[in-house]
Amino acid sequence: MRIRVIHGPNLNLLGMREPDQYGSETLEALNARIEELARSLGVEVEIFQSNSEGEIVDLIQQCIGRADALVINPGAYTHYSIAIRDAVAAIRLPVVEVHLSNVYAREEFRHHSVIAPVARGQIAGFGGDSYLLGVRAAIRLVEEGRA
Amino acid sequence: MRIRVIHGPNLNLLGMREPDQYGSETLEALNARIEELARSLGVEVEIFQSNSEGEIVDLIQQCIGRADALVINPGAYTHYSIAIRDAVAAIRLPVVEVHLSNVYAREEFRHHSVIAPVARGQIAGFGGDSYLLGVRAAIRLVEEGRA
Amino acid sequence: MRIRVIHGPNLNLLGMREPDQYGSETLEALNARIEELARSLGVEVEIFQSNSEGEIVDLIQQCIGRADALVINPGAYTHYSIAIRDAVAAIRLPVVEVHLSNVYAREEFRHHSVIAPVARGQIAGFGGDSYLLGVRAAIRLVEEGRA
Amino acid sequence: MRIRVIHGPNLNLLGMREPDQYGSETLEALNARIEELARSLGVEVEIFQSNSEGEIVDLIQQCIGRADALVINPGAYTHYSIAIRDAVAAIRLPVVEVHLSNVYAREEFRHHSVIAPVARGQIAGFGGDSYLLGVRAAIRLVEEGRA
Amino acid sequence: MRIRVIHGPNLNLLGMREPDQYGSETLEALNARIEELARSLGVEVEIFQSNSEGEIVDLIQQCIGRADALVINPGAYTHYSIAIRDAVAAIRLPVVEVHLSNVYAREEFRHHSVIAPVARGQIAGFGGDSYLLGVRAAIRLVEEGRA
Amino acid sequence: MRIRVIHGPNLNLLGMREPDQYGSETLEALNARIEELARSLGVEVEIFQSNSEGEIVDLIQQCIGRADALVINPGAYTHYSIAIRDAVAAIRLPVVEVHLSNVYAREEFRHHSVIAPVARGQIAGFGGDSYLLGVRAAIRLVEEGRA
Amino acid sequence: MRIRVIHGPNLNLLGMREPDQYGSETLEALNARIEELARSLGVEVEIFQSNSEGEIVDLIQQCIGRADALVINPGAYTHYSIAIRDAVAAIRLPVVEVHLSNVYAREEFRHHSVIAPVARGQIAGFGGDSYLLGVRAAIRLVEEGRA
Amino acid sequence: MRIRVIHGPNLNLLGMREPDQYGSETLEALNARIEELARSLGVEVEIFQSNSEGEIVDLIQQCIGRADALVINPGAYTHYSIAIRDAVAAIRLPVVEVHLSNVYAREEFRHHSVIAPVARGQIAGFGGDSYLLGVRAAIRLVEEGRA
Amino acid sequence: MRIRVIHGPNLNLLGMREPDQYGSETLEALNARIEELARSLGVEVEIFQSNSEGEIVDLIQQCIGRADALVINPGAYTHYSIAIRDAVAAIRLPVVEVHLSNVYAREEFRHHSVIAPVARGQIAGFGGDSYLLGVRAAIRLVEEGRA
Amino acid sequence: MRIRVIHGPNLNLLGMREPDQYGSETLEALNARIEELARSLGVEVEIFQSNSEGEIVDLIQQCIGRADALVINPGAYTHYSIAIRDAVAAIRLPVVEVHLSNVYAREEFRHHSVIAPVARGQIAGFGGDSYLLGVRAAIRLVEEGRA
Amino acid sequence: MRIRVIHGPNLNLLGMREPDQYGSETLEALNARIEELARSLGVEVEIFQSNSEGEIVDLIQQCIGRADALVINPGAYTHYSIAIRDAVAAIRLPVVEVHLSNVYAREEFRHHSVIAPVARGQIAGFGGDSYLLGVRAAIRLVEEGRA
Amino acid sequence: MRIRVIHGPNLNLLGMREPDQYGSETLEALNARIEELARSLGVEVEIFQSNSEGEIVDLIQQCIGRADALVINPGAYTHYSIAIRDAVAAIRLPVVEVHLSNVYAREEFRHHSVIAPVARGQIAGFGGDSYLLGVRAAIRLVEEGRA
Repeated sequence: MRIRVIHGPNLNLLGMREPDQYGSETLEALNARIEELARSLGVEVEIFQSNSEGEIVDLIQQCIGRADALVINPGAYTHYSIAIRDAVAAIRLPVVEVHLSNVYAREEFRHHSVIAPVARGQIAGFGGDSYLLGVRAAIRLVEEGRA
Repeated sequence: MRIRVIHGPNLNLLGMREPDQYGSETLEALNARIEELARSLGVEVEIFQSNSEGEIVDLIQQCIGRADALVINPGAYTHYSIAIRDAVAAIRLPVVEVHLSNVYAREEFRHHSVIAPVARGQIAGFGGDSYLLGVRAAIRLVEEGRA
Repeated sequence: MRIRVIHGPNLNLLGMREPDQYGSETLEALNARIEELARSLGVEVEIFQSNSEGEIVDLIQQCIGRADALVINPGAYTHYSIAIRDAVAAIRLPVVEVHLSNVYAREEFRHHSVIAPVARGQIAGFGGDSYLLGVRAAIRLVEEGRA
Repeated sequence: MRIRVIHGPNLNLLGMREPDQYGSETLEALNARIEELARSLGVEVEIFQSNSEGEIVDLIQQCIGRADALVINPGAYTHYSIAIRDAVAAIRLPVVEVHLSNVYAREEFRHHSVIAPVARGQIAGFGGDSYLLGVRAAIRLVEEGRA
Repeated sequence: MRIRVIHGPNLNLLGMREPDQYGSETLEALNARIEELARSLGVEVEIFQSNSEGEIVDLIQQCIGRADALVINPGAYTHYSIAIRDAVAAIRLPVVEVHLSNVYAREEFRHHSVIAPVARGQIAGFGGDSYLLGVRAAIRLVEEGRA
Repeated sequence: MRIRVIHGPNLNLLGMREPDQYGSETLEALNARIEELARSLGVEVEIFQSNSEGEIVDLIQQCIGRADALVINPGAYTHYSIAIRDAVAAIRLPVVEVHLSNVYAREEFRHHSVIAPVARGQIAGFGGDSYLLGVRAAIRLVEEGRA
Repeated sequence: MRIRVIHGPNLNLLGMREPDQYGSETLEALNARIEELARSLGVEVEIFQSNSEGEIVDLIQQCIGRADALVINPGAYTHYSIAIRDAVAAIRLPVVEVHLSNVYAREEFRHHSVIAPVARGQIAGFGGDSYLLGVRAAIRLVEEGRA
Repeated sequence: MRIRVIHGPNLNLLGMREPDQYGSETLEALNARIEELARSLGVEVEIFQSNSEGEIVDLIQQCIGRADALVINPGAYTHYSIAIRDAVAAIRLPVVEVHLSNVYAREEFRHHSVIAPVARGQIAGFGGDSYLLGVRAAIRLVEEGRA
Repeated sequence: MRIRVIHGPNLNLLGMREPDQYGSETLEALNARIEELARSLGVEVEIFQSNSEGEIVDLIQQCIGRADALVINPGAYTHYSIAIRDAVAAIRLPVVEVHLSNVYAREEFRHHSVIAPVARGQIAGFGGDSYLLGVRAAIRLVEEGRA
Repeated sequence: MRIRVIHGPNLNLLGMREPDQYGSETLEALNARIEELARSLGVEVEIFQSNSEGEIVDLIQQCIGRADALVINPGAYTHYSIAIRDAVAAIRLPVVEVHLSNVYAREEFRHHSVIAPVARGQIAGFGGDSYLLGVRAAIRLVEEGRA
Repeated sequence: MRIRVIHGPNLNLLGMREPDQYGSETLEALNARIEELARSLGVEVEIFQSNSEGEIVDLIQQCIGRADALVINPGAYTHYSIAIRDAVAAIRLPVVEVHLSNVYAREEFRHHSVIAPVARGQIAGFGGDSYLLGVRAAIRLVEEGRA
Repeated sequence: MRIRVIHGPNLNLLGMREPDQYGSETLEALNARIEELARSLGVEVEIFQSNSEGEIVDLIQQCIGRADALVINPGAYTHYSIAIRDAVAAIRLPVVEVHLSNVYAREEFRHHSVIAPVARGQIAGFGGDSYLLGVRAAIRLVEEGRA
């Protein structure tokens, strides 16, 4: 089973950017934790980060034939990128939307996700753990789909 | 570590009610799965269900001194019960909000949670697995708080 | 054929409360009229009143296996109780929503019913007669369902 | 006692138009049922249909001196015809608004009736039976007014 | 100078309909007063009433070449008839919008006129006198245009 | 009969300010026309202008016992001065609201008058003539009140 | 193949009315162009114009059995006539909505079409050519439906 | 004179819950202060607390015949419980709504009270003193009613 | 302890203006009652009234160094004067907002106070007694601040 | 005459993505059809697709001096890309906005186009044919501009 | 070149009022800095402060013939004073709107300026420096106008 | 001191695009003016332009360690790019938002900036001079931060 993980815009600054909001763990450290969990659960992960909406659309489209599920933190694009929404809907794979922070405890405009209605589920507020829970959830969705 | 799990209104009908929306697993079967996971992770769980808003407020208040974290599916009350929100905020414990279905793919009024801003995180869309992921998340939050 | 009738909050004050709005007939007198009509049409009725949202959810859930249709005046809960809405949707029986007063000629917030989209039909503005018309409508819906 | 019944726009297509929404009974069959009920209850009915807002205003105004009550399904005009609303308010007779379908389970714009605040009551969702219940309700309103 | 006066829907009931709102003067009496003023000011008036939106559009279009100005009380159509608005804009003559009652002291939906932005001016709240003031205003507008 | 006329803020610039919007007649010339009409109709007028909301409230309050009617162009205060609205409501005299321009053909925020619901009527869009029509209307309202 | 073309309100003034908005071509000239195109493509067209909403509903209903497709410019009714919308939905034929001007570059209220959701497609902004493109589109839709 | 005091949901946690928001005085200490004031002013008080909306409706209804006035802090229910609003309106006694905190300085959703329009007055922002002022206000209202 | 009391616009008409809304007590009589209470509680009061927003801003600013607390009824300015709000926030003293009438039972626009978020508390609906309660509340706030 | 055609995001998946929404024709097949039509009408076309907003802005800007008209399906960017809107407005060429599906029959957020007000016209709902009609429309606009 | 600078309400408290929001520089110190800059750039400045809306309107009107440009901080009036807006528009001089704080990082209601659309430009967020930049900007605008 | 200047989308067309809106100065000429000012004030500037949101995010992130302040005209992205907002917030440097035109005098959607709340200040409406004032402002902010 292959799971793609996509980090959206500004997540390359993780650990440097507003640590009270996003924690002090760097993106590399987080990626290492994701890979370790994947290994322990016997699945492959491919991890990407991009600040560009168009590139993220490309990365999502590439899942077709190359991944069984997608775990994505669309970052700021969560709130307005219908292009990413359409890509998520188009690939017809299980997609789990994750967020580091509790987006509902922040600015009003972060409460609305244009991705959520076409993802299978959403996990938010657990810092880097949101990704680990997201990988577990994705695996279960793939297994159910195969059952 | 003791974790309280609260099922909100109409969840006693689980498995009978709109199975295409909520799946065919009964509440008892789900509770058994939650208890099994808890055992395997070495934590205690206490599970409650109520159709009454006031009773759910009581159940949340009782966490003080009796639980280390709360996993709650407020069901329909998610969308308007400020009384439950205030109870969640008052107990000052890690609270994880869970939902069986992807609430963002349903009616407009289900997209808004009055609980979410005062919970620590939110997990939605994975059927009964939302609770299992919620218990894992709660344990991590308690451990972090203790660290 | 068994029809359950549920009166929502503050209807126990009927006849005493704002008689220009709700008329001077008491709840007992109205119930007697409902029972008399039921008898004359050869159906059984069971009538309940509660001020508690949770209790009304319970009373609706009990219809499963115990009633063929439900006539309900959700009173104030009409306008915000998604818990009652979910119960109405869950029992998968014909449900008729009734109101004593013409809710559309009153305060703005009474114009919106969260129950209406999941009920089969709605009758409002005829005082106690709304219930009698509701019982007739419910009987027709059950007969059609059986045909 | 004379009761006028007015069918609004597109109701002449009844039975042909979206039968899953409006049923397969034709307007003629429905009118026959209304007349039969009226006969059995000892009242006269006059039934009209029009696609034209101005004509419906005329038909309503003609009630003055010629009818004791009005049962009207304003169809699409329900949602915006203030001209019809003003005519309904002007005739100062009991007016019952009826709808074939449960308008609250349909598109958002069908949830709002500009007629409802000036009608005496509203019956919706029971197919052709909405009219029959409406005639019964109208008779009761006339009787009460005479009492 | 020829001035057309158009009365919109339900104004044929003037004097009969809600006299506390619209006064007890009949449409005929009002028309007589308008004609008398016109005579005294040396202008011709042609007066029409219609309940039909399409007919009112026709009556407005006929002004082209047949009238120098239009005084119109669009009645209920004031609030939604873009067809009438377009006709008013199309004839490129001075148009004065008049209302019997103070529409701003009534229901919220009567505060908005879709006609007002394309009329030259608006007079409301003076009962039948609104028309008389409107005829005076129209004459002045025609004179100014000729100056 | 004594009629007070109040010009609101920036009307002292009349003739200088945006002449395409407000015409080239100065305030003095307009006042002369108002006084001439008053004389010809046998009534007294007192005319005031102020840029200050508080002063306008004072000028309105002074009508009590000193004027039989008020013609007021509240200018920019039309759209937000509840203080002026309350003064207008408090004096319990006939009040006519006038505007030089057709406020409904201008910016959205000028379409709403907080004064209109408590004035007796409104005249807008006829340049300086709005005041002349307003004085005529005020006289009629006083006469009717005396009748 | 027979295609009905309906021109809505005020289109009889085409060429006379606001030529900068709608061009200087008259309705007759436009109709001649439509008929010529139809001839060249081997289809029949029937063209109607009406200012009356009710008449347009009638004209749409008559398509049943008499036309294979409808090209309609609902004019001002585009923005509020749910009666026309319901007729369009009821005939179950391919319907193409056309507009002379780019409605999205005009007043806010012209941006919304109540017809669009039940038409098959929409063509706007090409002057008289919108109709010609609409006829081409309609032919294709009929051919596809037959394929 | 008998005055009933009702504390709404989560007020049993007073002193424990968010002390920066609600102060450190416990509910018992506050109740003692209320009782002492009542004694000093020569009136009786009966004090209740409940987390349940239905129970609060019952407690309000019981005022009929048993109390002369009601001082109520509806807590979270302030913002959505139309059931409590209807009970407050039904008992036809002087009702004073009180709040510990200045609800207008908190989250947007706390700025709106569905109870306020049917209460006689509102006191908010003075901590426990809000109740003491509320009792004084209630006494005055009863005295005025008796005068 | 010195407490300043400010009456906003139109309150000089108290007793004359809409007595059913504001009661028949004059401003002088009310001021006498306030002064009497102050005397009995051993505090000084200075009382002002102004119709001018700018003057009220001045009166509030003068509190600095000259008063220990402010009791203010901003009247109509309550609903839009951000200038008064800013002055209230700037003086950093306890401020109590009072209203004679229950503003929540009146027009929609009176439900919103721009002052409330920066005042310490709010008392509304008790006629002249609102001021007396306000003075008591202000004294308590000063005492608490000194404690 | 040279016409540029731009396909927006996710259109590279055409034929694979939600075929019930977008049809089964691939982008290549569609492009072939467009080129064939262009050839038959004697114009040149250049066709591009991009998932990137910035790249689409570049592609639009390149029209200056290189194309006579633009046919663009902005895909998801239709609904929020003001950057693309500004590019469309900047090139000052005839631009035709096309959509495969009837966007008005889909999710609410697809009803609004930020591009439409600066395009010349809009064609939606005819599948691949929308492009063919768009090319025809663009040619006409260029010809008219040259006339 | 003469430039008028107007400080709006509560700016006389500068340095005393909420120093974390507005800094600790007093109005006098700021005025000295403005005058020094003006001297160094060879222009005259006249500086005024007022808490009164009407007075500010007067101060703006006086610019006609007495100043070449206006730098204004309308303070709280920024958000609602259409009277000031109209004065700004009427003087037909370059007007620069300045704010000490970043109004967009504060309460929602401070994000909207009714003055901005009629000013030439806006400078916000640089404390007292906003005025200095504003004077520079004003000089440039006058120079350009003279060029 | 090093200051980065970023020009957003379509600014490469400066001087060519809508000169009445944006002036006739080209981007190169403007950049030369910025560099000249920088030289004269003894600071370094680096200037970039991009049409791509992702690239602009990259350019902002690169400020970390490479610039002391940022002057940015986010162009169309001002109104919706939360990705750019997050980058601006993340770099924790003084950021000045500039606009050529007075955005508040243009389309409604240009009145709202998602960047403004996280920038330090905003300068709009002075054409190319907005950048020069922005550079001056940025220098002052850096100096203050160093003080």
